[in-house]
Amino acid sequence: MQFEPLFNPKSVAVIGASDRKESVGYAVMNNMIKGGYKGHLYPVGRKPELFGMKCYAKIGQIEEKVDLAVIAIPAKFVPGVCIECGEAGVKGLIIITAGFAEAGEEGKKMCIEIQATCQKYNMRMIGPNCLGIINPRDGVNASFASVMPEAGGVAFISQSGALCTAILDWAANQHVGFSYFVSIGSSIDTDYADLFEFFAKDPKVTSILMYIESIKDAKKFVLRAREFAADKPIILLKAGKSSEGAAAAMSHTGSLAGNDAVYDAVFDRCGCIRVDSICDLWDCAHVLATQNIPQNNRLCIITNAGGPGVISTDRLVSVHGHLAKLSESTMTELNGFLSPFWSHSNPVDVLGDATASTYQKTLDVVIKDPQIDGVVVVLTPQAMTDPVAVAKSLVEHGPYQKPVLASWMGQSEVEAGVKILEQGKIPNFETPERAVTAFGYIMRHPDIAAKLKEIPKYLDVQVDYEGAKKLIADVVADGRTTFTEYEGKMMFSKYGIPIKGMAKASTEDEAVAEAMKIGTPVVMKILSPDIMHKTDVGGVKVKLTTEEEIRKAYRDIMTSVKEKKPEARIHGVLLEKMVGFKYECIIGCKKDPLFGPVIVFGMGGVTVELYKDTNIALPPIGLQEADRLIDGTKISKLLRGYRGMPACDVEGLKKILVQFSKMIMDFPEISEVDINPLAVSYEEFLVLDAKIVLDKNMIGKEVPKYSHLVIQP
Amino acid sequence: MQFEPLFNPKSVAVIGASDRKESVGYAVMNNMIKGGYKGHLYPVGRKPELFGMKCYAKIGQIEEKVDLAVIAIPAKFVPGVCIECGEAGVKGLIIITAGFAEAGEEGKKMCIEIQATCQKYNMRMIGPNCLGIINPRDGVNASFASVMPEAGGVAFISQSGALCTAILDWAANQHVGFSYFVSIGSSIDTDYADLFEFFAKDPKVTSILMYIESIKDAKKFVLRAREFAADKPIILLKAGKSSEGAAAAMSHTGSLAGNDAVYDAVFDRCGCIRVDSICDLWDCAHVLATQNIPQNNRLCIITNAGGPGVISTDRLVSVHGHLAKLSESTMTELNGFLSPFWSHSNPVDVLGDATASTYQKTLDVVIKDPQIDGVVVVLTPQAMTDPVAVAKSLVEHGPYQKPVLASWMGQSEVEAGVKILEQGKIPNFETPERAVTAFGYIMRHPDIAAKLKEIPKYLDVQVDYEGAKKLIADVVADGRTTFTEYEGKMMFSKYGIPIKGMAKASTEDEAVAEAMKIGTPVVMKILSPDIMHKTDVGGVKVKLTTEEEIRKAYRDIMTSVKEKKPEARIHGVLLEKMVGFKYECIIGCKKDPLFGPVIVFGMGGVTVELYKDTNIALPPIGLQEADRLIDGTKISKLLRGYRGMPACDVEGLKKILVQFSKMIMDFPEISEVDINPLAVSYEEFLVLDAKIVLDKNMIGKEVPKYSHLVIQP
Repeated sequence: MQFEPLFNPKSVAVIGASDRKESVGYAVMNNMIKGGYKGHLYPVGRKPELFGMKCYAKIGQIEEKVDLAVIAIPAKFVPGVCIECGEAGVKGLIIITAGFAEAGEEGKKMCIEIQATCQKYNMRMIGPNCLGIINPRDGVNASFASVMPEAGGVAFISQSGALCTAILDWAANQHVGFSYFVSIGSSIDTDYADLFEFFAKDPKVTSILMYIESIKDAKKFVLRAREFAADKPIILLKAGKSSEGAAAAMSHTGSLAGNDAVYDAVFDRCGCIRVDSICDLWDCAHVLATQNIPQNNRLCIITNAGGPGVISTDRLVSVHGHLAKLSESTMTELNGFLSPFWSHSNPVDVLGDATASTYQKTLDVVIKDPQIDGVVVVLTPQAMTDPVAVAKSLVEHGPYQKPVLASWMGQSEVEAGVKILEQGKIPNFETPERAVTAFGYIMRHPDIAAKLKEIPKYLDVQVDYEGAKKLIADVVADGRTTFTEYEGKMMFSKYGIPIKGMAKASTEDEAVAEAMKIGTPVVMKILSPDIMHKTDVGGVKVKLTTEEEIRKAYRDIMTSVKEKKPEARIHGVLLEKMVGFKYECIIGCKKDPLFGPVIVFGMGGVTVELYKDTNIALPPIGLQEADRLIDGTKISKLLRGYRGMPACDVEGLKKILVQFSKMIMDFPEISEVDINPLAVSYEEFLVLDAKIVLDKNMIGKEVPKYSHLVIQP
Repeated sequence: MQFEPLFNPKSVAVIGASDRKESVGYAVMNNMIKGGYKGHLYPVGRKPELFGMKCYAKIGQIEEKVDLAVIAIPAKFVPGVCIECGEAGVKGLIIITAGFAEAGEEGKKMCIEIQATCQKYNMRMIGPNCLGIINPRDGVNASFASVMPEAGGVAFISQSGALCTAILDWAANQHVGFSYFVSIGSSIDTDYADLFEFFAKDPKVTSILMYIESIKDAKKFVLRAREFAADKPIILLKAGKSSEGAAAAMSHTGSLAGNDAVYDAVFDRCGCIRVDSICDLWDCAHVLATQNIPQNNRLCIITNAGGPGVISTDRLVSVHGHLAKLSESTMTELNGFLSPFWSHSNPVDVLGDATASTYQKTLDVVIKDPQIDGVVVVLTPQAMTDPVAVAKSLVEHGPYQKPVLASWMGQSEVEAGVKILEQGKIPNFETPERAVTAFGYIMRHPDIAAKLKEIPKYLDVQVDYEGAKKLIADVVADGRTTFTEYEGKMMFSKYGIPIKGMAKASTEDEAVAEAMKIGTPVVMKILSPDIMHKTDVGGVKVKLTTEEEIRKAYRDIMTSVKEKKPEARIHGVLLEKMVGFKYECIIGCKKDPLFGPVIVFGMGGVTVELYKDTNIALPPIGLQEADRLIDGTKISKLLRGYRGMPACDVEGLKKILVQFSKMIMDFPEISEVDINPLAVSYEEFLVLDAKIVLDKNMIGKEVPKYSHLVIQP
């Protein structure tokens, strides 16, 4: 356990300890002492004595080998001190010091030196440019944040130090406990994935909450997040939704799979629940710190006023929760003691004159209803209402097996009650919508865990890997990175992705002969590696049936193309049997700079970017993942049979997606693919237009198999 | 001014005054006294003396005519007491008593009696079943809510008494002032519209905030809301989004224009800004109570930490705000005093060590930038940060011309600073996203006001009103409420909505002759008032070109229909020239039970309910409203020319919508209309299929012109 000495140290040295109250070194020392740290604490600094302890000039002078050194000295001294730490047998470092990134080249050099030192001496390091870490259970406040939170199960990781201080401040006031609190800083050594791995093995950690702005090692992140989330929830806020627009791309897929959409797909795939705001993140912390995780999405709302009940219901529906249907026995029991005017359904309106006992009896009844997975209790300060008595009762009768959240609405009138709730570990929310929203996020965990545990089903289909490889080699040999349509379709056919009745012809006679072979009517398209937009140069003719039509079309195309694009190399024409179809889909792939290839599926055609009825998944795609990829679109409803119209062969489509994913997995040199449209009829799917672009930087490069994927099959 | 004596009474009687502390009568008396009411206050009750005042047994015994009587006695005595009030010359009533709606028939009867009494004596009444009203400026707390808020500009109206108490409690703690605070109760006399009208004329009212669950008089609501909102903002929370699913309807339009979608369209049309949650409503109150309204949507964010800046930007983009571009002179000025490491763009990151003076200088610079319409100042508690000093400075240098919102993040560490901000009328928000969201709502007011002031442009087109009237009469005479497709198309043609090359034929020969007249290829469809789904009975044949094809089609249709629907009356067949088209649109109308006819436009075809790319508007529709109706859909991008494809005749489409609206306005007996698809080519629009259903209850009824519309032309 590399991180054990860092997070649960037996001894801690503070390098840069000082008695100047405004210094970070002072703050860390002071926090360690105030936090009640029970291990050995050693100040390292210029004074002979600090805080009534012997102060060491160098870490090497300390009589024992210390587990953790917290470094708070000017940046330029840090690399040297790291070496001293290594030599002194220190096991973990926290570098609070900032000024590395800002120092440009010099800073980068220092970072590399520090990384090398950490590796050499087998030390793990957090930072630089961070607030530090807190382990409340063991009284470790190795940070310059003065608030020591309570001990609890939530592990918090933040890329923003500023957010850490705000969250700590809220936590202290709302009795939210943490197992670990980590300001991760520039994360040049320890990153999110390392922490996921460490936290996964620590039974004290019941969930992870995090704020992130960027991810460095996508592969590790995805791997470790999946492991953790299969067991315990990860809730995160990712900032920068709008900061990076989808860059100009050659393909539709490129623009559909914009930066933030890919993040969403990645988080979804690795089971991270992404929230929308700081409020949401905090509210989830609040619930996770105090309540069990609901087993399903059916919520019961108890309220003493109609309005908040209606509003809560609206919110529940919008977060895809379900208003629990009260079971018959619950109804009978409630009828037994509630006023005859109660709502007789969920939300359970216990009316304005509800006493503490009314609330309590109602809660006790609904919480044992097997059709209810969680309860939100709403209280508005009305004339007869005793916010304190209700709060006391709820706390005294707890803890509850299922999550119970509260919303005592108002301020002064409910303040005392709220305090009792918070101290009693029943989270209170300013408004019932916030309670419902938090429930909505957390209720997703059981499904996520099940999904992450499933064993992907692949297909046992023969593919012509060598043939596909040769196709790529041929394109490369021709000095190109872009496939012609013919080559693209051939490529797909090697992976069993259906194309139909296609032939090349380089003379008029050949065109007639081939057309008759594949059957009319045919489409004729110019075949040239230099022409991307065939229609623009008069390079496409449709509905050709007779020999005469075919001959004329051939001549017209050649004349027009030669006139409009004289420099283009002409490989002849592509002939295809015209097919009728019901719908147009798109299957595409693009390489995300961070997450590697991502696969897009959805409604295709020219309006693909307008309607954006598409969904994104990461390879490898098994049959179950293909199902989810399809079902994340509206067009899936059409494909599965809509309003009495017949269904298409969705099983066949799933297989195509699995095969498509296999192709992407087999060839790291593929950069972008657009199959648009994939023509869909009730019987079959056909690639009607195909675009494949290779990644210049990967051509001819030997890389380990699947190394371009963030998820290993 | 009917409401003047009710809201600004010179004398108040409390009927049901009591010295029992738990009684409502006591609470109202006590609140009036504590509130510092300067007028004459008269207890009416059983005691000879109450609160050291003479107590009257009957209202009629009071020596002067009182302006306002607050009634807090058991329901059964209320009707009688209302009469006594009327006879005593009381001008306004507030009935706090509940138990009318719950008392069933008896309760309804009492309500009718009270309404009659109010009319007879020309009294305005608020309630029953309400909390009362508060006018803080004049010390009138005629309610049993014990909190007296500060005086301010916001008028608050709530249908939920429980929400009133919560909001009052927040308001007291955050120094949010109100002009009037109204718990509207069952609103059997005074409703929202009455208050809009009264508040519009009161310069002390600067905005209206409201919570509503239902609207009774839609016409009055829309009229008065439009008047108010053209001048000052109305912000509302409407509960019950999910409570009413779209009921089963005969048409697509019926299911697209579900209850909540119509509310959205109505609020939009009358300039009400609808928020999403209690938090939002409260946050808007907070801004409106303290800040000027922004003139546009360009926001500047000042922050001492990067993370919250990024998160705020994400939120701003999602609420359709703009991150203001800092002008050159602003950049120069900021460079003059900020650390060289500042962000050099908006969000203006003044860095973690920013002092009060740094914050203040930055705010002073950006607030005078003409490219900036508002500022959100974010502070996170960092080591060098002084939350109190920054707050003090901001308050001391205020008030500001443009809205300034704050987010001091955290709790204990920023508490003192937050208090100073709130006292200094700079609203503080728990998180920066909440500040940005509130800005996002309020920034919409200038556009709304401009839209409400615009003069609608109608068309000067001749319509065949009499012809249309006759068509309806013929359908009715035939004992039907549903038009055949032919009749529907004829109806549209009377209003200049384009149909094309259509003919009826009732024999084979006639079919051939008519087809040749309109030009082939044609579509042939069975014409029967009893067949709604023509395809199902083999009643449609397409692409008929030759005489032989036409004859065969006629025979096939007749055979099939007679076999499958032997009882159907057959009017022959409908022949139409087949047209090619690019897109399918829908134009529809349905009668909302509350808001009357609403008009739907958007992407049509069979997937109309799947993609729901539609928008809703209320008649009358002028050219500008038609523009907005179109632009609220994605398909408008196609129609206006997408990705190099030519544009369609959008001007022509606007005219069709205006004419369609005219038809709906002219015929209150029309209940549902679906034009789906409206075929769209680059040159023209054509009604391809048409459905018209009449409203049984309106047939043959003489109603005043336009009385079925909530907006009068």
